[in-house]
This record gives sequence, C-alpha cells and structure tokens, in this order.
Amino acid sequence: MKAYSYDKSFELYDRANEVVPCGLYGHLGVGRARLNPMGCYPLFSERAEGTYIWDVDGNRFIDYACAYGPNALGYQDPDVDAAAMRQREKGNCTTVVSPVMIECAEKLVETINCADWAFFAKNGGDVTTLAVMTARHATGRKKIIMMEHGYHGVYQWCQKAGTPGVLDEEICNNLYVPFNDFEAIKKMVDDHPGEIAGILSMPYDHISHYDNVLPDEDYWPKVRKLCDEKGIVLIIDDVRAGFRMDLAGSDHYFGIKADLLTLGKAIANGWNMAALVGRKEMREAVEDMNYTGSYWLSAVPLAASVAAITKMKEINAVGIMQKTGEKLTRGLKQTADANGVKLSTTGLPSLFKIILKDPDESLIPHQVWVGEMVRRGVYISHFHNMFTNTVMTDEDLQYTFDVADEAFKIVTKKYPEILI
Amino acid sequence: MKAYSYDKSFELYDRANEVVPCGLYGHLGVGRARLNPMGCYPLFSERAEGTYIWDVDGNRFIDYACAYGPNALGYQDPDVDAAAMRQREKGNCTTVVSPVMIECAEKLVETINCADWAFFAKNGGDVTTLAVMTARHATGRKKIIMMEHGYHGVYQWCQKAGTPGVLDEEICNNLYVPFNDFEAIKKMVDDHPGEIAGILSMPYDHISHYDNVLPDEDYWPKVRKLCDEKGIVLIIDDVRAGFRMDLAGSDHYFGIKADLLTLGKAIANGWNMAALVGRKEMREAVEDMNYTGSYWLSAVPLAASVAAITKMKEINAVGIMQKTGEKLTRGLKQTADANGVKLSTTGLPSLFKIILKDPDESLIPHQVWVGEMVRRGVYISHFHNMFTNTVMTDEDLQYTFDVADEAFKIVTKKYPEILI
Repeated sequence: MKAYSYDKSFELYDRANEVVPCGLYGHLGVGRARLNPMGCYPLFSERAEGTYIWDVDGNRFIDYACAYGPNALGYQDPDVDAAAMRQREKGNCTTVVSPVMIECAEKLVETINCADWAFFAKNGGDVTTLAVMTARHATGRKKIIMMEHGYHGVYQWCQKAGTPGVLDEEICNNLYVPFNDFEAIKKMVDDHPGEIAGILSMPYDHISHYDNVLPDEDYWPKVRKLCDEKGIVLIIDDVRAGFRMDLAGSDHYFGIKADLLTLGKAIANGWNMAALVGRKEMREAVEDMNYTGSYWLSAVPLAASVAAITKMKEINAVGIMQKTGEKLTRGLKQTADANGVKLSTTGLPSLFKIILKDPDESLIPHQVWVGEMVRRGVYISHFHNMFTNTVMTDEDLQYTFDVADEAFKIVTKKYPEILI
Repeated sequence: MKAYSYDKSFELYDRANEVVPCGLYGHLGVGRARLNPMGCYPLFSERAEGTYIWDVDGNRFIDYACAYGPNALGYQDPDVDAAAMRQREKGNCTTVVSPVMIECAEKLVETINCADWAFFAKNGGDVTTLAVMTARHATGRKKIIMMEHGYHGVYQWCQKAGTPGVLDEEICNNLYVPFNDFEAIKKMVDDHPGEIAGILSMPYDHISHYDNVLPDEDYWPKVRKLCDEKGIVLIIDDVRAGFRMDLAGSDHYFGIKADLLTLGKAIANGWNMAALVGRKEMREAVEDMNYTGSYWLSAVPLAASVAAITKMKEINAVGIMQKTGEKLTRGLKQTADANGVKLSTTGLPSLFKIILKDPDESLIPHQVWVGEMVRRGVYISHFHNMFTNTVMTDEDLQYTFDVADEAFKIVTKKYPEILI
C-alpha cells in the first residue's frame, strides 16, 4: 500500500496561514495550538459522501471521526438533505419562525425519555451554558459539580483555570470530582451543604489521549437519588454521545432520567443545531432566561433534524452503529494480536477509543501507528474518541483491518519494544 | 384596508406551547419572557422571499426586521443560495475543512479595513466572547469597559447583574459607561490604571425601546487614541451593524481601525455564520486561545458568505440600503407630519429606529401604531431597531406609507393627546 501524499493540502495550508489564525484551528489545528502532527493528516477536503472524505490531493479516507460526531447517517444523507432543501425553498433564517420548529420539538419530546420540552440553539456550548444558568436560577445556588476531564464547550465557565482569557472569577464556582466516583460526589455535596446547584457530566468519560471510562452499573442511579434528596439539578451533556448510545437519551441507557439534557452533533446529521431538553419541573426556570440568538430557530436545520431523527428511529441507527463498532474494534484487536501488540478499545463501540499500548506508557508508537493508518486512507484521531455511522460497510471494515495490519508491521519494526 | 387575522398562527402557538418553553422565545416571544404583545404579530411563517414573509394564515408582510439583521440581499437570494447549494453537494460539516474557508477569510481580509485575519464561529456571541477573552490574554488585564446599553449576546459575561442564571462573579470585571461620553471612558481608565484590557462597544447605540444614538464626530478618534496610549484593545461589535454602514467595517465608517471587530448577521445573508477579524498585532493572542466548535468551519455558510460579500460589493449594497432607508424614513416622517404627530427617526437609515412620540413619554400609542402597521402587512418592531435590504422597492415603500397613514389615523383617534 502506498502512503498518501498531501502536496495540495500543504500548499493550501500556506495560503490559509496568511489569513487564518494558526492556519487551521480547533481539532484540525496544525499551528501553535495544534493537536494534529503536521504530515500525517490531510488538511483540506474536496468532497464528502457517505462515510468517505476525498482530500484536495485526490486521496480517499474512510472517516471514523465523523466530523467529530455529526455524521451519523452518512455525509449527504439523501433523506435528511432532501428535507433540508425542501425547507430551504420556503425559508431558513427569517423574522417569523417556521412551524417546523414545533415539529422538531415534538419529535424530540417523543424520542428523548426525559424531554417534556425542547429549546433550540446552535452550539453544544450554547445549551450546556443554558443548562448551568438554568440550574443556578432554579435552585438559587451557585456551585456546579463537574467531572475532572469533562468537556462542555469553550466559553469561560467551562474552561480550566489558567486557560488563556479565562478569569479565576469565572470558574470559582466549579467543583471538580473524578468520573465514576460516587463517594467523591457525595463528599463534595456534604462539604457544601445547600450550595450545589447542579451536577454536570457526560454520560461516560471520553477523555482525550486516555482510555474512555464507563460508569459502574449503580453509579448513575446513586447520583440520581442523591440529586433528588438534595434538590440538585442533574445535567447530562449528551452533545457528543447523544443518538449513538440510545435514541431515548444516554441517561435512559443508564436507567435514569436527567433533569436537563443537552443535544447536538448527530441531532441533524451535520446541519447546524443544538438543543436543550428537560423535564417539566425545569420548564419554568428556562422560561425566565434571557437567552436567544440570531440563527437559533433557522428552519433548514430544524427540518434536517426532524428527518434525521425519523430515519434514525426507522432504521435502528443505534443498533447499526453499535454492531459496526463491535465488528470494527474486534477486528482491530485481532489484527493487533496477530502482530503481537496490545490495542486497547474502550467506550461504547459506536463511540469508541483505541490506543496502541506501549509498556513504557508512551503515546509515540500510538501516534505513529495512527499516522500510518491515516496516510493509507483510514481517518482516525490519535487523541479523540471516534464514531461509527450507519453507512460503513463490511468492505470498509476489511480495508481498515488491512491498513491496520500494514501499519502495525511498520510501527513494530520501528518500536520493537511494544511487542508483547 | 382590512386588518389581518392570525387564527392559524394562534392554533400553532397553542401546539408550540406544549413542547417549547414560552411557546416562542427570544425576539419572537409572546410567553412569559415576551417582547411582542399577543395579537399584533403573526407567530409562524410559511414562506419568505425577497423582502416578504407570508404567514401560515396567508398574510403577506413587507419585512423591515430582516430576520433581525441577516436578510440584507433579500430572502432566498439566488446568487448566495446557488453558491450554498453548490457547496452542499460537495460537503458541509465534515472532518476535514473545505478550501472555501480560505476563500472566505481572504474575502473578509480584502473587504474589512482592520482585518489582517479572520476566525469563524456560529453566533455573534461566540465572537464577542472570543474578542473579550483575547483582549484579556493579550494585555494580561481583567477589566472591560462596556456601554451601559450595549448588547453583545447572551452568555453570562455580557449579561446584566441580576439576570437569571448570571452570577456577580461572572460580571464583576465589567465597567459601564454611557455611549458617546469620552470623558466617562477617560475617567474610568484613569480610575483603573493598568487594569483595562479592552473597550467593547457597538459602533453606535441601538437601544431597545429608545432612540438610537450616533457618536459625536471626534468620539471614536479620541477613543482610538486613548486605547493606543494606554495599551487597551478596542473591540467594535459589528454583528448587527456590519455590512450596513460600510462594507469596510463600521469602525472605518467613523475613520478609525478597531483592534478586533466582530461580524455576523448580514455576513452570509441568513446562512449561519459569525466571524472575528482583527489586526496583525492581535493574531498571536488569538492563536493561543482554546476555542472551537463542531460546526464552526461548515462549508455551506462559508460559501454563502463569499457569495454574499462579493455581491454586496458589486451592487454597492450599503448605498442601496442607505438610500432606501432615507426614502423610507423621510416618507414616514412626512406621513406623520400630515397626520399631526411626531415620528422620531434615529440611527443610520439602513439600520433605523422609529418611535411615535407621545408628549407624556408613554410608549403605548407607539406600540398601538406599530401593531396596526403589522396587522396591515408592514412588519416593524416596536422595540428593536429595523433594517433595510437591497430588494425593497418604491412600491414597497409606497405601500408602507399608505399603511402608516391609516395606522396614524387609527391611533390619533384613540389617543388624541399625541396630536401636536
């Protein structure tokens, strides 16, 4: 297999660097705030369809990043995009909202178990922010218990101390506990009697650069009970995991009902939308909020969302994504075994994390292995959890295993110390 | 002229109220957090095209709210939407960004006078937040001087004390001064030596419920000079006014260069996008920020923005919108004069505010007048500034004057005390 080259990507990057901070920022960044090492990844894409991306150099990739979540039904899903285009012909961002807003809210209420109502916005962070503000307003308390490794967006309140532009004052009411440690939560609640407005957490821990962590079976029921006893608002941030664990909500997957639940990413298969849903007891507090945005009720993403959720239900999208993820992680593990290396696969298979383990706990061989995969057409992240979608085929998986095999051979030759 | 009825809107509102907080929220709200009085306004629209909206009851409105800003070239502009649709066929929100991001950044840099680079996001608030965080990081200082009536989004840091869900800690570094009061700014700077990170302001004051206020001619040059002397970052929030005062930026309109300038609304004629642009001296600070979002580099809005800005330049959109606004406000004033009432028109004509003045300073006759306008097909806001676009015709204006005349007659009959 010949490794891809990215000449046109690099040319465009030089051009981007003239007019865009870091040239590329965020997950895609290769500049000062970089996550992706220069050289392994394509930097600009020409086209996306189904589960594939074609870069500007003509290379094709099976995309296990799925736009970092939104791509659940395949890029350019014909049903979702047809619904979006029908709505576009009528109107999108207009002064008076379209009735499709109601349809979309009804669809969420009938789909998400804890949802008695839905509020729409644009970023995952818009709705995690609204959730925290609502919890504070509903309880008259200030403090929020968050998980040490949680990610809830980029606004000041949810960034870590010392992050550029974030003041200590803005985060001084955050209390941090490790995920899946009920006793730590209980102690934090006991240490701050009557002060905890909410507990904010992803349904399980998707930690960058580390294995993902699922909770113990009784963890969420115990947290739920504690919240009920102490009048604490339980907020599940389902922006990333939503619609990949359980269409009824990741809280429902773990047998509980959140008070507030945030959604985004897969909610409209890539059309720009996020939602806060919640129980009827929380509605009055949400209604008091001063919270709106120019594009929040745009009709095209709402129509796309109705179509996406309808289709995800019809085809049992979660079942498909889980099954594909099981085959994928099992096959990758077998390929690793055959090459004498240890591959760790954690998280749910539809939302998985893989790490090539090094006995010295270095991530370098892992990153090299990932780089060799990407340069042969399998787009995986070296730091982020990954996603399956409903259109990945057995041929895609087989191609992935073939590439993985070759990449394992390259990396074990370079780093023989990882052989077990 | 027969006043419109909104039976289907009200039916849909009852249905919305089951699943959406307040039924409708934000600018459209008629519930607890309402701005619009129930009964005057259509609540749901079926279709939008050009400068018109058709509601679900089949009523047509000339829309002077322009989606609260985004509609600058007319709803469904054929050039902008064709560009968006061409990009949609290639890809929208994908794992690897499209080269159209570079085109859009280059377009902004060549168009906006103070822009050496561009950073893209989704909400106006995303970029005002990034601007403030960047100013703090760049200066190592905490305090931000803001205008008493400024609006910069809904996140905690830019809301007022006492707003539900907002903690005093989150806004304790905001310092407020009246707009167009250079001495107040100067005193605030002198009172906090070495503590001011930035000054954040809209280019002129668009105050809800009040006349708009333009600055004195030497105001912005004086502020600019003070910022230079004291190492303060000058942030112009051009989300609302951008592309309606001067395509090169509203700071340029007033003869200065901002350090950071925020854009949104008209930037992509309704496709969901916002941008922060700035001078080269600020780029290094922006590059340090931990700031990204799932949909921020989606290709469809970027392609729409390139097309929108290109077209706005080609047709001299600002000139058209200013001229239309001048004809409109002049005609409305003449109609008011002929009816013996005083209509105040403030702000730039492309971004204007009208208030029917009552000698007792009540806004009730104004709201009644606006209601009668809306119920005859002229959609204007009773509290917000309004906008012109490039597709309003002389016939639209004449229809507006005819409706205004009838509405003045109704309101003067009901409130004869407003006759001068």
